[in-house]
Amino acid sequence: MLYSFSNRGLRSGTSPINELIQYDLEHDDVISLAAGLVDYESLPVQSIAANIAELMSNPRLAQAALQYGTTRGLLQLREQILEHFRKAEGNKSLFDADDVIVTNGSQQLLFLLADILLNPGDIVLVEAPTYFVFMDTLKIFGVEIHSVAMDGQGVCPEALKAKLQELRQRGVLERVKLFYTVDYFQNPSGISLIESRKSEIFALIQTFSQTSHPILILEDAAYRDLGFNGVSAASFKGMDIENNWVLYTSTLTKTFSPGLKCGYGILPKPVLEQVMRHKGCHDFGTANLVQHLIAQMMLHGEYPNHLESLQKSYAAKALIMNQCLEPLRHKGISWQIPSGGLYFWLKFPSSLPTGPQGSLFKACLKEKVLYVPGEYCFHNTDLSEVVGSEWMRLSYGTVPTNEISEACHRLIRAVDSI
Amino acid sequence: MLYSFSNRGLRSGTSPINELIQYDLEHDDVISLAAGLVDYESLPVQSIAANIAELMSNPRLAQAALQYGTTRGLLQLREQILEHFRKAEGNKSLFDADDVIVTNGSQQLLFLLADILLNPGDIVLVEAPTYFVFMDTLKIFGVEIHSVAMDGQGVCPEALKAKLQELRQRGVLERVKLFYTVDYFQNPSGISLIESRKSEIFALIQTFSQTSHPILILEDAAYRDLGFNGVSAASFKGMDIENNWVLYTSTLTKTFSPGLKCGYGILPKPVLEQVMRHKGCHDFGTANLVQHLIAQMMLHGEYPNHLESLQKSYAAKALIMNQCLEPLRHKGISWQIPSGGLYFWLKFPSSLPTGPQGSLFKACLKEKVLYVPGEYCFHNTDLSEVVGSEWMRLSYGTVPTNEISEACHRLIRAVDSI
Repeated sequence: MLYSFSNRGLRSGTSPINELIQYDLEHDDVISLAAGLVDYESLPVQSIAANIAELMSNPRLAQAALQYGTTRGLLQLREQILEHFRKAEGNKSLFDADDVIVTNGSQQLLFLLADILLNPGDIVLVEAPTYFVFMDTLKIFGVEIHSVAMDGQGVCPEALKAKLQELRQRGVLERVKLFYTVDYFQNPSGISLIESRKSEIFALIQTFSQTSHPILILEDAAYRDLGFNGVSAASFKGMDIENNWVLYTSTLTKTFSPGLKCGYGILPKPVLEQVMRHKGCHDFGTANLVQHLIAQMMLHGEYPNHLESLQKSYAAKALIMNQCLEPLRHKGISWQIPSGGLYFWLKFPSSLPTGPQGSLFKACLKEKVLYVPGEYCFHNTDLSEVVGSEWMRLSYGTVPTNEISEACHRLIRAVDSI
Repeated sequence: MLYSFSNRGLRSGTSPINELIQYDLEHDDVISLAAGLVDYESLPVQSIAANIAELMSNPRLAQAALQYGTTRGLLQLREQILEHFRKAEGNKSLFDADDVIVTNGSQQLLFLLADILLNPGDIVLVEAPTYFVFMDTLKIFGVEIHSVAMDGQGVCPEALKAKLQELRQRGVLERVKLFYTVDYFQNPSGISLIESRKSEIFALIQTFSQTSHPILILEDAAYRDLGFNGVSAASFKGMDIENNWVLYTSTLTKTFSPGLKCGYGILPKPVLEQVMRHKGCHDFGTANLVQHLIAQMMLHGEYPNHLESLQKSYAAKALIMNQCLEPLRHKGISWQIPSGGLYFWLKFPSSLPTGPQGSLFKACLKEKVLYVPGEYCFHNTDLSEVVGSEWMRLSYGTVPTNEISEACHRLIRAVDSI
């Protein structure tokens, strides 16, 4: 039977990443350095078990947790989130609990924000490279995507300025709705945007905004809590003291237990109200049990304790992976050592393209190791050329510590075979 | 600051129901017969506590439950869902686990289906009355809503046929995408659509469908498991043996623990694939811990056991409420005694309109009892007239058994005061 889908339905495609995941699932002997999953061993099973037991032992609390919650999210959780944010910002107190909304992971909030803000033809600026699931999301909305170059210190203010000037000259500045940045330990590059650039960018965005057509900064801080030394730079949101310009999104569970699926946003009030109305039709609220559980674990201090041990565990894995990859440096392959997050971002010489149709990718399949080809992480307006084929994303998230060495050997053998 | 929202953002409004919920929250002494929440006392706290403890005591299972899941949902849960469906259909085996998708409550699936199917200007047929949150959802998508009359046996096939003929004559039949029906213990009316009408309607829908423009039946079976005698009529989905025409949506948690927020759909394969791609950008999968928990409780038989006791408990509450409301019959107010679900649907004489601006609503506020005015549950094309002001929805869901009598006395006093 033939179905007649909506324009938006027709624009949502299959992400090539899904094919990688499928391949991994179907091949037991493959080691995936492609998956963005988290470390199994460090999942806080005991602590979650104990906290759910505690919650369920209090009849009043248990009933509240199993009943419907509100669309905005549990007040105690929103208060804990603000406190967590305050600490990350060096104890600067800003915003109140009503500026916070709880969502099904941060991805739902990215979708909701795109949904309430973007018409087809609107313009969104993204980093090059950028988070591929959000690119898929933007495609659904039929927007025009423009990339802004990054270097080792994050997105380049000069490149952003040049792009905004170009768009002004084309007379389309008022169609620019968002600048999307993953400014902490970015997926895929692992790079963090340095603080001095943030103030520069924040000023730029305001300069190019028009009264009734502000350009908003969508700050995706999903990896912020995964800095190996436990600290992170100040956020754009922290500079947005009047709560006008920055849509701050983050997650409580990628860094904790993804199976709980809980994210949040700190948003300008009119944007938050609009997101709430929309979420009222999406699901009228995130699973209440999950919210009660996380609020309790944040209150008990178990949440920050877990983060601390997780940061150490990922730092150790990153160190091992860096040592194991070392032989690749002699092949002209280079990378920064990550200081947080889940990813290595390797730059290959042009003689060794990383694309999924190339011989390196095939050699890796033969050696039974998977990676994410860099080209999945760049927006490409001109389909006749390939962008990003010199890059490769490797994740040490889900691979067990004792398999990192074997995975890297496989990768090295694949490179050697070309 | 002025924000520039998308067309869809601008179309999502505040539901008047939210004002009722807010009023309830702010007034401790009010008894709400308006809320669609569930009974607190019967929430399966002990059983959920024991099952989470069991899940967490198995390290391999616990880690799987706390890790990311798949977008489609946990296989074991999808298998249990199919088995549950099979039993409800009198052991008829249809469909396979890949025809099932797991979502954040059934509301998320209603949103996703609207999103992938509906362009502005498309036509959706709904029952009169119908579920108000889905009407709010449809408004976001800018579709044209048409109502089809119901009587005590559900939506009327003759009225549906007349509507389809009218739309054919207007030359807009190919814009009709969906017929939305809440065919079990409907919200708000409590009425179930009888089986004989279903086959008639299924045939009608096929007759009026054009090859590349099928009219799909969106069967919202959210209350199906709440029949007081434990059985329910066959579904439209059960008639759809080739899995082509019917989008079946339901929930596992409204009937169990809404705080877990887990729903599902059984869908034609091409529709399911499209929903999955879209859900990949919404949240790439429903909270995995919740899915593992419910799958285990279905496998252990605790889920159906809970349903059985819940059905008895709601039946008892409905019986009490019916007795307490009895004096209203002398005022020309009438209703069917519900045989499942959560609602009484009272018809008032035209001298006693139920609207939120009327004296009855105000008298109820004075008596500290809340109800849902019927007009919230009807689509109204002609804003100069009010539709549904002879109806009132009362829920016995969340009100404690020992407060039902007091709530009804307050309502009766309010009626008497007019």
